[in-house]
Amino acid sequence: MTYCIGVMLDTGMIFASDSRTNAGMDNVARFCKMTVFERRGDRVIVLLSSGNLAGTQAVIGVLNQRCETADAGDPGAHLWGARTMFDVAMLIADAMRDIERRDGAYLQENEMGFNASFIVGGQIGGEPLRLFRIYAEGNFIEAGIDTPYFQTGETKYGKPIIDRVITRVTPLADAAKCVLVSFDSTMRSNLSVGMPIDLICYERDSLEVSKRRRFEDGDAYFNALSHEWSEGTRQVFRELPELRW
Amino acid sequence: MTYCIGVMLDTGMIFASDSRTNAGMDNVARFCKMTVFERRGDRVIVLLSSGNLAGTQAVIGVLNQRCETADAGDPGAHLWGARTMFDVAMLIADAMRDIERRDGAYLQENEMGFNASFIVGGQIGGEPLRLFRIYAEGNFIEAGIDTPYFQTGETKYGKPIIDRVITRVTPLADAAKCVLVSFDSTMRSNLSVGMPIDLICYERDSLEVSKRRRFEDGDAYFNALSHEWSEGTRQVFRELPELRW
Repeated sequence: MTYCIGVMLDTGMIFASDSRTNAGMDNVARFCKMTVFERRGDRVIVLLSSGNLAGTQAVIGVLNQRCETADAGDPGAHLWGARTMFDVAMLIADAMRDIERRDGAYLQENEMGFNASFIVGGQIGGEPLRLFRIYAEGNFIEAGIDTPYFQTGETKYGKPIIDRVITRVTPLADAAKCVLVSFDSTMRSNLSVGMPIDLICYERDSLEVSKRRRFEDGDAYFNALSHEWSEGTRQVFRELPELRW
Repeated sequence: MTYCIGVMLDTGMIFASDSRTNAGMDNVARFCKMTVFERRGDRVIVLLSSGNLAGTQAVIGVLNQRCETADAGDPGAHLWGARTMFDVAMLIADAMRDIERRDGAYLQENEMGFNASFIVGGQIGGEPLRLFRIYAEGNFIEAGIDTPYFQTGETKYGKPIIDRVITRVTPLADAAKCVLVSFDSTMRSNLSVGMPIDLICYERDSLEVSKRRRFEDGDAYFNALSHEWSEGTRQVFRELPELRW
């Protein structure tokens, strides 16, 4: 499984992903599911991957190669040249469909399908923050005022706390803590979601990734956060109004 | 869908169930999923139903009829005569298998199966508190020190808060509030779980149900609880240690 989340706030964005992959309970590995395309002062694009690892790696490989071999006459054909985040989402979808065309029939021979999907967000200079969720079929949806975040993978355990705490006006620092607690809740309940957690906090219009952190198993801050959250919520329960029967 | 939870604490038990049933999004109804067998001073048995409504109602119908037509010479054959909660779980499983034998083949003609399942708990005079989860096949597991609660139905949204707050020594009143917040989290995310919520708080060795409450949509206490919980958790986030990047 996987747990990834992208959040869009008025003041910036938060991206986080776990690193556990598995092909059965007895075949567990670590792979980073966060890919960053950053050119300071120009653009920050963050991709969070979920689904079959061969599929997501192939898509990112294609996106990278298209950046390297870009035709100067066709800047819209790669992520460094894309004019808007909408165009970025289209380029990723195109790469996904190219891989699906290449691999799909072979996967189907073993009754598997191309199931890679992505959360992608960020900002291109002069453009607003934007956040998309791209499905395995290559179609996508965009976050808006009513739903300012997307999750993929094991989404349920970590969703209620996000819904209660995060709105568009939540300070970035509070939202980052909330996302980490959401990961803690998810990892406690689903062993196929695991450390390390990659976290990026992008400040609007900065056009650079200045706040990025990896949380390994046993991370002192993460453990303190988990502990103080549990203690804090117990205290909240003690102070809630008593139920009259 | 459904959301039911039974919790076993040192000082008592909590049972809660939602009341929404549906056969498709366009066919939603209200049915109580909580059944109580209470004889003051002798026993309290609480059943929480999930799965196909025809199946769960049939099982409870059989259990009730067996109580009414009980052979005085065979007190172990019905819930009023069962000696232990383990025997209670066996009687429920027997009734489930009787219904499955009766209905199973007909359901299979339309590629459906008997999928009723139950959480059952309570206390019989002189016996300890016990809590069981009975699967659709009639086999069952019992709660213990490591896992003092069972959920059925839409379990994921409401699980993290239970895991963080409830231990065997949590006061009954705090645990009841936590269970209600767990329902609030679940209902916010899954429309097929809905009000009213039935809640019982059973005090150990009381052998009677003195605390029972139904929460209808718009219940003032429930709304206050939900609001103060959201406010309280936001406050906890503000006070959590700042993340250093």
